[in-house]
Amino acid sequence: MIDVNIIGTGHVAWHLAKAFEHQNKVNLMQVAGRSDLALQDFKQLARQTTTSIDKITPATVTIIAVNDDAIVEVSKKIEYSKQLVVHTSGFTAMTALNPKHRRGVFYPLQSFSKTDASIDFIKVPILIEAQDETDKKILQELAALISQRVQVATSIQRRHLHLAAVFANNFTNHCYAVAEMLCKEQSLDFDTLHPLIEKTVQKAINNGPMPSQTGPARRNDKSVIAQQEQMLESPEHKKIYTLLTNAIIKTYGKEL
Amino acid sequence: MIDVNIIGTGHVAWHLAKAFEHQNKVNLMQVAGRSDLALQDFKQLARQTTTSIDKITPATVTIIAVNDDAIVEVSKKIEYSKQLVVHTSGFTAMTALNPKHRRGVFYPLQSFSKTDASIDFIKVPILIEAQDETDKKILQELAALISQRVQVATSIQRRHLHLAAVFANNFTNHCYAVAEMLCKEQSLDFDTLHPLIEKTVQKAINNGPMPSQTGPARRNDKSVIAQQEQMLESPEHKKIYTLLTNAIIKTYGKEL
Repeated sequence: MIDVNIIGTGHVAWHLAKAFEHQNKVNLMQVAGRSDLALQDFKQLARQTTTSIDKITPATVTIIAVNDDAIVEVSKKIEYSKQLVVHTSGFTAMTALNPKHRRGVFYPLQSFSKTDASIDFIKVPILIEAQDETDKKILQELAALISQRVQVATSIQRRHLHLAAVFANNFTNHCYAVAEMLCKEQSLDFDTLHPLIEKTVQKAINNGPMPSQTGPARRNDKSVIAQQEQMLESPEHKKIYTLLTNAIIKTYGKEL
Repeated sequence: MIDVNIIGTGHVAWHLAKAFEHQNKVNLMQVAGRSDLALQDFKQLARQTTTSIDKITPATVTIIAVNDDAIVEVSKKIEYSKQLVVHTSGFTAMTALNPKHRRGVFYPLQSFSKTDASIDFIKVPILIEAQDETDKKILQELAALISQRVQVATSIQRRHLHLAAVFANNFTNHCYAVAEMLCKEQSLDFDTLHPLIEKTVQKAINNGPMPSQTGPARRNDKSVIAQQEQMLESPEHKKIYTLLTNAIIKTYGKEL
């Protein structure tokens, strides 16, 4: 049995608590958060909830699931020491945690949001890090209860993976947003692009993104590129078009 | 029964011929292409194949499925006139076709490639255009036999949709390619990002891209942004990071 405390009441805290709910081997002892209202949702999932972080008592693993900029302070506020305390951030180093703890990281690589009723955690990669082998094993055991994709990674690796995720998630999503704006300008439904979007992702996943690259930039089709640049009315969209087109030409240029 | 000729032996020609194969209401009469070798694959799908475009005989619909820059010439080479002749391009205007024909467009909005064994055409949007209502109805009938998503669009609308597709397909794919490079630099597997990539697309499709936008740029988290910029070693990647980050900040800035 692994006793777990969670500090934080945001999306990551919520989805972790839900994932632990049906695990017989996990005991969610305490959930701490600043807001009594936010804690309401956790009352049925944890033995105890509290608004006083300094009142929580030791557990096998204490998970700090708060914003990056609150990790340092929260880890300091925990009264107990020499216990395994982890954060859930991709960006922040393990060493941001207060050194009085046995420190670690438990990073679920997924985009969590309010609209998700529940997350199928089994496919969510969980990247773990710890200072020694014993703690690494505890985290591995805990992660393996909810996910099939548990991976050990250093803070530097995790930080780079988090950056890669900005490209693969945030930036691709903005490209969709621009595509939607371009559709709307012509009274076209963004839905029309859905099958293409799904296909693009399938190909990038199945064959890798580089062999899947297509389009005027990949062919270095200067005539189409010049005309498309002219079609874009927003200077912001034009800049993105030009930069990404040149980046693609440069990436594949040697092959042409 | 709709008699169809196809000119071209590329991916679009191939996937259209395959889609027509099991349609009792479509008769694939002739397939014409420059290369005898490329025509081999079509021999079982069409009544006749030929390397002489000028030898094909009239059909209800003649589909020119060739590269954009060959459309003008190919449409001129067709010996017959006053028949319905369409091209399959998103980018090229209907008027690029020789005016001796009854002109139209039959644009399947999908990314076709060699690696696709077959395309499930039923969900592929087909955008059609014609000069008069009668021809529009013929194209609508033909398109509806293979797709559930038939849509009438003008050349200008189609051209913009094609441009939107560059953002939604080609540019997102390049973001995946950059993410993959960043993973490799840290000996990390790009596979780790697959679940996040799939989730991002699901959210953009289900809720729209704008409400789905997340990340440091969306939060205008200047500290994370500055540190991530520094982490990028490639000047090319850094430029993309900065431009897309600023574009996201600008897009959502008013709400912050």
